[in-house]
Amino acid sequence: MSPGASDKEIAGVVALVEQSGGEAFVSRGVSRTIVGLVGDIEAFQGLNLRAMPGVADVIRVSAPYKLVSRIHHPQMSTVYVAGVPIGPDTFTLIAGPCAVETPQQTLEAAEMAKAAGATLLRGGAYKPRTSPYAFQGLGEAGLKILADVREATGLPVVTEVVDAHDVDLVAGYADMLQVGTRNMQNFGLLQAVGQSGKPVMLKRGMQATIEEWLMAAEYIAQRGNLDIVLCERGIRTFETATRNTLDVSSVPVSHDLSHLPVMVDPSHSGGRRDLVVPLSRAAIAVGADGIIVDVHPHPEQALCDGPQALVDDDLRALAAAVRQLPPLMGRRPATAATPAPR
Amino acid sequence: MSPGASDKEIAGVVALVEQSGGEAFVSRGVSRTIVGLVGDIEAFQGLNLRAMPGVADVIRVSAPYKLVSRIHHPQMSTVYVAGVPIGPDTFTLIAGPCAVETPQQTLEAAEMAKAAGATLLRGGAYKPRTSPYAFQGLGEAGLKILADVREATGLPVVTEVVDAHDVDLVAGYADMLQVGTRNMQNFGLLQAVGQSGKPVMLKRGMQATIEEWLMAAEYIAQRGNLDIVLCERGIRTFETATRNTLDVSSVPVSHDLSHLPVMVDPSHSGGRRDLVVPLSRAAIAVGADGIIVDVHPHPEQALCDGPQALVDDDLRALAAAVRQLPPLMGRRPATAATPAPR
Amino acid sequence: MSPGASDKEIAGVVALVEQSGGEAFVSRGVSRTIVGLVGDIEAFQGLNLRAMPGVADVIRVSAPYKLVSRIHHPQMSTVYVAGVPIGPDTFTLIAGPCAVETPQQTLEAAEMAKAAGATLLRGGAYKPRTSPYAFQGLGEAGLKILADVREATGLPVVTEVVDAHDVDLVAGYADMLQVGTRNMQNFGLLQAVGQSGKPVMLKRGMQATIEEWLMAAEYIAQRGNLDIVLCERGIRTFETATRNTLDVSSVPVSHDLSHLPVMVDPSHSGGRRDLVVPLSRAAIAVGADGIIVDVHPHPEQALCDGPQALVDDDLRALAAAVRQLPPLMGRRPATAATPAPR
Amino acid sequence: MSPGASDKEIAGVVALVEQSGGEAFVSRGVSRTIVGLVGDIEAFQGLNLRAMPGVADVIRVSAPYKLVSRIHHPQMSTVYVAGVPIGPDTFTLIAGPCAVETPQQTLEAAEMAKAAGATLLRGGAYKPRTSPYAFQGLGEAGLKILADVREATGLPVVTEVVDAHDVDLVAGYADMLQVGTRNMQNFGLLQAVGQSGKPVMLKRGMQATIEEWLMAAEYIAQRGNLDIVLCERGIRTFETATRNTLDVSSVPVSHDLSHLPVMVDPSHSGGRRDLVVPLSRAAIAVGADGIIVDVHPHPEQALCDGPQALVDDDLRALAAAVRQLPPLMGRRPATAATPAPR
Repeated sequence: MSPGASDKEIAGVVALVEQSGGEAFVSRGVSRTIVGLVGDIEAFQGLNLRAMPGVADVIRVSAPYKLVSRIHHPQMSTVYVAGVPIGPDTFTLIAGPCAVETPQQTLEAAEMAKAAGATLLRGGAYKPRTSPYAFQGLGEAGLKILADVREATGLPVVTEVVDAHDVDLVAGYADMLQVGTRNMQNFGLLQAVGQSGKPVMLKRGMQATIEEWLMAAEYIAQRGNLDIVLCERGIRTFETATRNTLDVSSVPVSHDLSHLPVMVDPSHSGGRRDLVVPLSRAAIAVGADGIIVDVHPHPEQALCDGPQALVDDDLRALAAAVRQLPPLMGRRPATAATPAPR
Repeated sequence: MSPGASDKEIAGVVALVEQSGGEAFVSRGVSRTIVGLVGDIEAFQGLNLRAMPGVADVIRVSAPYKLVSRIHHPQMSTVYVAGVPIGPDTFTLIAGPCAVETPQQTLEAAEMAKAAGATLLRGGAYKPRTSPYAFQGLGEAGLKILADVREATGLPVVTEVVDAHDVDLVAGYADMLQVGTRNMQNFGLLQAVGQSGKPVMLKRGMQATIEEWLMAAEYIAQRGNLDIVLCERGIRTFETATRNTLDVSSVPVSHDLSHLPVMVDPSHSGGRRDLVVPLSRAAIAVGADGIIVDVHPHPEQALCDGPQALVDDDLRALAAAVRQLPPLMGRRPATAATPAPR
Repeated sequence: MSPGASDKEIAGVVALVEQSGGEAFVSRGVSRTIVGLVGDIEAFQGLNLRAMPGVADVIRVSAPYKLVSRIHHPQMSTVYVAGVPIGPDTFTLIAGPCAVETPQQTLEAAEMAKAAGATLLRGGAYKPRTSPYAFQGLGEAGLKILADVREATGLPVVTEVVDAHDVDLVAGYADMLQVGTRNMQNFGLLQAVGQSGKPVMLKRGMQATIEEWLMAAEYIAQRGNLDIVLCERGIRTFETATRNTLDVSSVPVSHDLSHLPVMVDPSHSGGRRDLVVPLSRAAIAVGADGIIVDVHPHPEQALCDGPQALVDDDLRALAAAVRQLPPLMGRRPATAATPAPR
Repeated sequence: MSPGASDKEIAGVVALVEQSGGEAFVSRGVSRTIVGLVGDIEAFQGLNLRAMPGVADVIRVSAPYKLVSRIHHPQMSTVYVAGVPIGPDTFTLIAGPCAVETPQQTLEAAEMAKAAGATLLRGGAYKPRTSPYAFQGLGEAGLKILADVREATGLPVVTEVVDAHDVDLVAGYADMLQVGTRNMQNFGLLQAVGQSGKPVMLKRGMQATIEEWLMAAEYIAQRGNLDIVLCERGIRTFETATRNTLDVSSVPVSHDLSHLPVMVDPSHSGGRRDLVVPLSRAAIAVGADGIIVDVHPHPEQALCDGPQALVDDDLRALAAAVRQLPPLMGRRPATAATPAPR
């Protein structure tokens, strides 16, 4: 309450809270009185307490998400993508080209990915681009290429969907749907992937707090889909040496708050090839359940984000890190060898 | 180029640029060589110069948008919403409830708005909400209420559309479509409003640079719709005393770069009722073409953002500011009295 | 408390708080218990409650500053600089060169400032520069020039001090000491200016929250000096079109929290000459008690921040704004004509 | 240049640059002309090109620091602190209490640190605190305790200095001086530690870009002291779940730009005990030359930052990480066993 709040104003708040079915506890201090509320947060939000006379501020102290929270689901979840696990016991490498350009390029990239230890293939057929003049992806033709490459290599496919309209089409080809950073709060898209029946990788908005990220996951979960993998990909800060600032702390913080697996994208966060291997190592060591990286057979010809795609030498360094570090974290490689217990 | 770039590497860059139809100018210094490119930026982006041997960095110095730029369109534009101008000669007040709740509440809010000098009515029937447990809007029922209130008050209607699916439906009721901050990079939605035939208010993403905002406007313009009004609504910073930080500098900066009108939303940026009038005054004084504010007849009952809705006293202060300040900026009130010269 | 906190853990917290002389109020909910504390915050901080078993989080809800707070001092303060008031009834224009370079340049700049309506002269003799290779100021020779120009023009002098060592020396020449953005948390310097006997202008750290800014002011106030003027000068964000983002909201927010006057620096925040007049207007309209701007007779030769110094045309526009807008805000020009009621 | 820059304006820029001893290369495009400069940046900065008619923008493409840059010093440096190396071949653990409180507490903390593998002792006798009401450190009495504990344990001492006045006094006791985040741009202090004859640990300002951090190091280096260790400690972002956002990317980025060693402080960045071990692992894996962590025998009684101090279990986990991970990065433990090759 404000320093000068009257007894009547305090009583008004208490009465309103109790009418809505909650409990209000009044703590009076020398210069200030605090009212603690216990009950249904949504009901409290409808009360607009902040607008009542005498109220100085309203501070929420419990979490605004439920299905994805660890409070009611303390055990960590494992999400299976065509049998490949992403979860607390394994480490999953997803790799592939940023954008699908040609069958040949995609196949070569998939083989590079597989050689480095990847068990899932990434590749974009629909690209959300900041500039309308940039390459926007091949669309369904790209999805067909991904399906063919899956056939050839055995790698299940993770691909982005950028519009709620396209969810059924993309889900017809993909093993996992990706929601990108610019769409983290595209609520229509979140609901559509929630009904798709496919696992979802939800990238963190470059401007989003961890709490908002978990609320976005809650939108998906509410439609009955709990096969959600969070993916940290860097946030926007004042630093300009890197495209975004990879927030590695978000891995243990979100593991503490949510039972969902968390991966890291070291390629898009830094936007620089020379940072991919160091940031991948950091991601493994901080406790990520996997990483997702860009590879390209000929990055100098890439139509999208070539500067950050790994080439041969880096890929060998990455493969070494993925072999050496996860066992120290108590994780084994994620493969589809053992049938998934669904 | 990198400090140790060889002549062959430099020649390679020049040759590649010239093959693509551009020009490359080489400036050699003691410790570093700079290559300046002149020509088609998109062609250059396809070259992936950053990935070539010897290249240290690629810096773009011209703007990545065209249709919304002042370079080819130096005169400032005026956008007409059912005859009400938004542009360099006028000052436009848009006001109304954050969310349409009931016919009575919407009518009362519209009358408050009109009394304060508003010539356009805002009101949300579709609300993008961070939490899936928050009120999501009345949908088409809300649009009907808005149409009825327009009939009763004569105020044309500005309302938000949150999904590309809904654009035709919303455009059937609204005089101007609003794209919200969370959807500034929902490219499917941008393209859909670009084909809607209605003027569009494009809010700045809370995480977006001014350049990205103008590129988002370019997506709309590319579909043939140049009736775009930009709206600054605060950006995300480390400061926690306000919901977001209103970036008033973005008004003169975007006026310098683009011919599009720019408005300011002082209600959502601060998130506090006591800041709405001071921020409105700042917006007028910095040169905005208008402001858009929340009003509510009973903010303590509002289902959405009640804490920032203006009530009677504030509204009188706002009305005074809107009467006094714009004339000092060489602007007259925006009314539909004079038929718009379309 | 954590969801699983035991009764014993809760009782432990209560006992510890009561031992320290405070009161603890326990509010038990279905899934969580909240303990509200009332009493001496500093004593509570010494308890390290966050480290106790069962404690999930500790949230402070009252202000950590006292002398500068409005809670115990609701009336707004006026600070007098050699008789020139800065406070709620007036509007004060401070102008002058970013850096003192020569007697001639300083005198010309002071005459420009005076012609535009300035009643205080700014000018830097000690410049904190990010690069050690940039011009660092003339030192005491610059202070002497400022004193001579004061003699010639009658304008009292505001100048920056960058090191606690120099406070006595600078205070011997200046009428007001300025603490710059990089030194807002240079606590030794804050204490030294607090003992200097001179009014102090405290710029906001470009990274500082409003609360931290007020705590920095509290360091000065603690040494017995309440003649403090806050100065907003832009904060660091991801936006790159402007040097910093002017946070105009900080003016009404800090006026709400503190009785100290608040000025705005529109020159350093934007870093662009074309933004100085629009941002100055915004500052006046949002309720600032004054502004401080760079002027230079020959900005193309300035040794420091030339790009943002106002020249003739802009200065006329600024003078017009300073004449027209403050009266609408209920403010009169700040002059030393009337003896200050000290 | 601006789109409409005249030939005369372009020639003016070229002439001015050539007068100052530099070279200017003109690249003319269809809608815009670019002038590339090669020569002495400082001379160019004095020209104020941005203020010349026809100039649209000035972009610097080379680094503003020299002594700390890798351009003229490609080999990575090792800094020796009383014989303990910090550099590319080793991994150094610095540990100790945030603040020195009592001889007993400091000795116990030092023994904990040593048991965990630390070879340098940290401890604060002078504490820069945001609030003037928080514990400010024991001053010289604390330095004496540190010296006694060094005697007892053999661990050289790293301690913070917060004011240029105190540098000689602190250097009389300490083996390495620390400059804290709030003082990264306290240029008087930087110069004083540059003349102290002691190695310096320079923490990154929580608001500082990597470039500004290196310029701050350049201030120290200019006074003849190249025994500088950079320390990343988190930057300020919009995320509120952690005190600051640890920017692990800054380690490889600064290693790429500078020959100075880089350490990481995982305690202050996160501000949460549960994050210290994960962030320490991330720091080792990303390539840091060492870490500096808070330990306290009784964190619930700590006068400063108790919530983040490691206790026994965490310390064992940290010790395991420090044993296991650095060898995978090609690093051996840093000890003073081998005499330092000075």
